[in-house]
Amino acid sequence: MTEVILKEGERIDGLPSQNVHIIQNPDMFSYSLDAILLAHFAGVKGKGAGLTVDLGAGTGAVGLFYSPKVIGKIKLVEIQPELAEMAQRSIEMNGLQKRVSVLLSDMKDIFNDIQPGSVETVLSNPPYFPLNEMTKTNHDTHYELARHELTIDLPGLAQVANKLLKNNGKFYMVHRPDRLTDVFSAFEQRKLRIKRMQFVYGKSDREANMVLVEAIKAGRPGGVRIMPPIIAYTPENNYTSQVEEILYGQAWS
Amino acid sequence: MTEVILKEGERIDGLPSQNVHIIQNPDMFSYSLDAILLAHFAGVKGKGAGLTVDLGAGTGAVGLFYSPKVIGKIKLVEIQPELAEMAQRSIEMNGLQKRVSVLLSDMKDIFNDIQPGSVETVLSNPPYFPLNEMTKTNHDTHYELARHELTIDLPGLAQVANKLLKNNGKFYMVHRPDRLTDVFSAFEQRKLRIKRMQFVYGKSDREANMVLVEAIKAGRPGGVRIMPPIIAYTPENNYTSQVEEILYGQAWS
Repeated sequence: MTEVILKEGERIDGLPSQNVHIIQNPDMFSYSLDAILLAHFAGVKGKGAGLTVDLGAGTGAVGLFYSPKVIGKIKLVEIQPELAEMAQRSIEMNGLQKRVSVLLSDMKDIFNDIQPGSVETVLSNPPYFPLNEMTKTNHDTHYELARHELTIDLPGLAQVANKLLKNNGKFYMVHRPDRLTDVFSAFEQRKLRIKRMQFVYGKSDREANMVLVEAIKAGRPGGVRIMPPIIAYTPENNYTSQVEEILYGQAWS
Repeated sequence: MTEVILKEGERIDGLPSQNVHIIQNPDMFSYSLDAILLAHFAGVKGKGAGLTVDLGAGTGAVGLFYSPKVIGKIKLVEIQPELAEMAQRSIEMNGLQKRVSVLLSDMKDIFNDIQPGSVETVLSNPPYFPLNEMTKTNHDTHYELARHELTIDLPGLAQVANKLLKNNGKFYMVHRPDRLTDVFSAFEQRKLRIKRMQFVYGKSDREANMVLVEAIKAGRPGGVRIMPPIIAYTPENNYTSQVEEILYGQAWS
């Protein structure tokens, strides 16, 4: 880890299993378990030499946690300058400048920088909440943009991911289970075929609060696999051994 | 339980928690855990006075296991005469003739007998396997019709369920997770809005092999809830206490 200068309010959080560190500012935006589980869930094609794009990267948590799994390049696409700048410093802090770069852009405008059909793997931890009259948006704009579908919605995200991907390339996303109908509808519209899903339950007797999704571009329809459940916490509110292993165990293969 | 005369090859299986017994013939067709979990999962509107229809009832397991939860009438729709006849004898054996009846019919032809828009609750444990050139159908016709989409497919089932239901009536179905894309697509086409799902995992470290689905006719879109996971077996291949409670515990509320 190289030396790093933190701005006011910033701190460094690490993921021991992957030996990756992220500069965070809780006043602006913090990654959560969602980002870690998405990076863990996402697969690798072959030796991982292909291009990976993280759409709506925030401070870069998903792409950086995923980076030890592959040998190819990773582009972190983020629309908010402050978060993109923090991601850039985290890249340098982890010594990943040769492989990982930040693209400060609205994800709908990235096709001058990234060629359509050139991407092996797309990752995304997008805004979870739809916009409607009932939406109570957080007044802090960093959180607002990260949480609500202000700049991109699910059909838009599916369109961008699909355009980026090679045929048979994979799109990995984390979302809220209450949006499942929208997820299936948006993905099917682009022939992004859902192949694997994994539900994350806060506790073994609780409803799922997270869903991990793997889709393949232009794949054969049907054949969804529901992977074993992830239970996040024990009844005593500690991480389960399953999640502890992901956070603190062996590096992910 | 009234006296009953069994035919050759038949036996009586019971569900202790509900005190319901079903005449089975394993050479023809047997219900499985799927039917029990569907009857358990299915909700009750108000005091349960409305009409319930079990589409593709087989020997009547789903509708009969559900019957103690409601006070209204239940119609079991089955296309195979031998299975319908066994269902009829099971109704009599359980003394449920006043509330439960069998309709021997292709489910597409039931609208002379059941008025469209008159049903509160539709239950279905339909054939799981799509028909295609690769389909290896079992040569025994009873199992074949129950397992493969020979007489009804998912869009057809959604159409019939939707036509039967009142507005805000509920459709409860059990299916295989690998058909999830087809389930969402068929239901959305009929504006049967999926509101609750529950995944059943054979063991805690296995993929889900069953999904329970609740949809509401003409409901508001969105808002899917994923209920706590059901784990069927312990690592030692016994039923988990969760499933034992459903099979042998208190009667379901």
